Amino acid sequence: MVRRLMSHTLIRLLPGRDRRVKSGHPWAFSNEIAMTPAAKALPPGAVVRLEGDDGQRHGTWLFNPHSLIAARRLDRDPEAPVDVAWLRARLGAALALRERLFDAPHYRLVHAEADGLPGLVIDRYGDALALQANTAGMETLTPALIEVLQGLVGPRLIVARNDASVRSLEGLPQETRLLLGEPGPVHAEEGGLRFTVDLLGGQKTGWFFDQREHRARVARLATGGTMLDAFCHTGGFGLSAAAAGAAQVTLLDRSAHALDLAMASAAENGLANRVTAERGEAMEALERMGQSGARFDMVVADPPAFAKTRKDQPAALRAYGKLARMAATLVAPGGFLFIASCSHHVAPGEFADAVIWGIGRTRREGRLLFQGGAGPDHPVHPLLPESAYLKAMLFHLA
Amino acid sequence: MVRRLMSHTLIRLLPGRDRRVKSGHPWAFSNEIAMTPAAKALPPGAVVRLEGDDGQRHGTWLFNPHSLIAARRLDRDPEAPVDVAWLRARLGAALALRERLFDAPHYRLVHAEADGLPGLVIDRYGDALALQANTAGMETLTPALIEVLQGLVGPRLIVARNDASVRSLEGLPQETRLLLGEPGPVHAEEGGLRFTVDLLGGQKTGWFFDQREHRARVARLATGGTMLDAFCHTGGFGLSAAAAGAAQVTLLDRSAHALDLAMASAAENGLANRVTAERGEAMEALERMGQSGARFDMVVADPPAFAKTRKDQPAALRAYGKLARMAATLVAPGGFLFIASCSHHVAPGEFADAVIWGIGRTRREGRLLFQGGAGPDHPVHPLLPESAYLKAMLFHLA
Repeated sequence: MVRRLMSHTLIRLLPGRDRRVKSGHPWAFSNEIAMTPAAKALPPGAVVRLEGDDGQRHGTWLFNPHSLIAARRLDRDPEAPVDVAWLRARLGAALALRERLFDAPHYRLVHAEADGLPGLVIDRYGDALALQANTAGMETLTPALIEVLQGLVGPRLIVARNDASVRSLEGLPQETRLLLGEPGPVHAEEGGLRFTVDLLGGQKTGWFFDQREHRARVARLATGGTMLDAFCHTGGFGLSAAAAGAAQVTLLDRSAHALDLAMASAAENGLANRVTAERGEAMEALERMGQSGARFDMVVADPPAFAKTRKDQPAALRAYGKLARMAATLVAPGGFLFIASCSHHVAPGEFADAVIWGIGRTRREGRLLFQGGAGPDHPVHPLLPESAYLKAMLFHLA
Repeated sequence: MVRRLMSHTLIRLLPGRDRRVKSGHPWAFSNEIAMTPAAKALPPGAVVRLEGDDGQRHGTWLFNPHSLIAARRLDRDPEAPVDVAWLRARLGAALALRERLFDAPHYRLVHAEADGLPGLVIDRYGDALALQANTAGMETLTPALIEVLQGLVGPRLIVARNDASVRSLEGLPQETRLLLGEPGPVHAEEGGLRFTVDLLGGQKTGWFFDQREHRARVARLATGGTMLDAFCHTGGFGLSAAAAGAAQVTLLDRSAHALDLAMASAAENGLANRVTAERGEAMEALERMGQSGARFDMVVADPPAFAKTRKDQPAALRAYGKLARMAATLVAPGGFLFIASCSHHVAPGEFADAVIWGIGRTRREGRLLFQGGAGPDHPVHPLLPESAYLKAMLFHLA
């Protein structure tokens, strides 16, 4: 079935404001676009053709007259029919890439602009999917997306995790709801472990696939020793380390619900005897543990974003420095510190400087063994390097 | 046996020039140091105590009055005896870390400042070692290093690969010579393969351990397809991919000697039927192949450093952009491009911009799947981030 979902109204760039779009950038900002009465009257999420003031054709875009990022490119072809067949091709390419990358169907299936589906994020847990439509266009396309996903991966469950704050920039409500199927238990499988995930109630889409490779790297180095997993959420780092042979793992989080899920996963994977949960505000608990002389062979500090907006950035950098200092204090001689930031508004160099400053405060000699970002199921659009939000660092401390 | 190798002469920082050293930086530059006649008369590589003009003690350092980097910190303890026992502790810590990181004794054993041994690089190929002493201090300590290494790893062969151009900055000659044992065949073992290495005649120390994880990542994605390994040197990427199931691998290099070693390794590992060698200047060959319509499912472009000095940087960036364009042209639809730079004088962001510009010239839609640096046996000193010289990027091209 090929059906036309929307018409392609023509939208024009302003004279002299086409430099970004001509360079191949996938966004056009509202101050680059001729906001005629007709353009302003378009429904948010309309599919449009975009042309320069000179008539140069720039392809097919999603348009939202009320958003600062007013247009997002779907296709370089100005005649692209954005229908079920078109969506099936895009989603099929994203699926084919993940099937090359991973052995099991647990991954971020779609990562927005980098997968040619601006604003759309889909996480796959076997036959359960969590979908985030962060643009009005993807909201509008959701029924067609469900149809395509049913044909491609046959899910028993699709949940809309439309609770990201960025939705408000598109004039969309924040909500979590069932799109398909009945609620039921969902698991993320990784490294031979099964983690219980709460798709309807948990943070974000319930699981953070972006740190998969980092969990494996940390787990290999945690063998035989003690470990503190601070800001543990549902225990991904800690349980991976326990499974790889860590002798004793302490999980630390403020959320009783997250700790309950983590301990349920620990029990299900036969690791409960080596894992203990401690509920508390991690920053306070780290300070207290440091003062009490507690030491661990591996410390993981993977907090939620400290900078929610750009204006939070200076305070966030101070907090990352403090976190690095407190976490490094807890590392036993010859042990390891893994620290990460998922703040979009903190650049890799800024984060590294803050962390190195914090470790320096402890006067520990350190080796930086690894720096990296999100896994390959979170690809980056080459012209949106700022979308590489995850920054991870692994140190060996003498 | 504990023996004092050298006395600790006192060297002072100039008034007001102690900021860097106080921050924990492991270097002091010649314009930060009081270059008294006594200091200037010290032999290059002398072990000294460093103090501020205010009398603050900054530990034990290696000193070279003729080098811009005049002092390099050995130990925060100003009384540290830099003797065989001290060297054994430092080398032992470096060895213990590698034994945590790797299953087999093939790795960079010592990576200079980050391992607390400024200017010293040692690569280990089982019971063969390649040593680079890039400072006068490490040159002076070489006999003691040999003694310690004999006790720690019992090598049958140690080669001094003292042919790095940085040695001239320390007033040292460039040379390659045997320090211990008899010349004989040396192999690097990685991912179940054995690569023939020419410790006395090859480039650098004969093998590039820094790309180990990248070779594994590329190999997993090369399964079943065709591959071009441009600037292949001794075939690390190409043979790893062939072993992982690549259908056909083309090795490209200007060096007949490197290609001979690569094809010998291909034969030894039973891969010769899927590997072919093509000798040529890679930049010219890539252009020619692109024009002739050749396409590969995986293209690796891992050239030697294009920027040997900072003044080469603009030309190097143009060359990286051109290389990215030519290499991307050769990638079949849905294929992968791996591209890397080992130029110290090109920063990660500069390299990424050049590569993305080059790929953009082909008007291919690309996903950046991975960005990273050297493996964890090449640790980075936290205050020498510029020593993170390796920049690797992996793209999926639609």
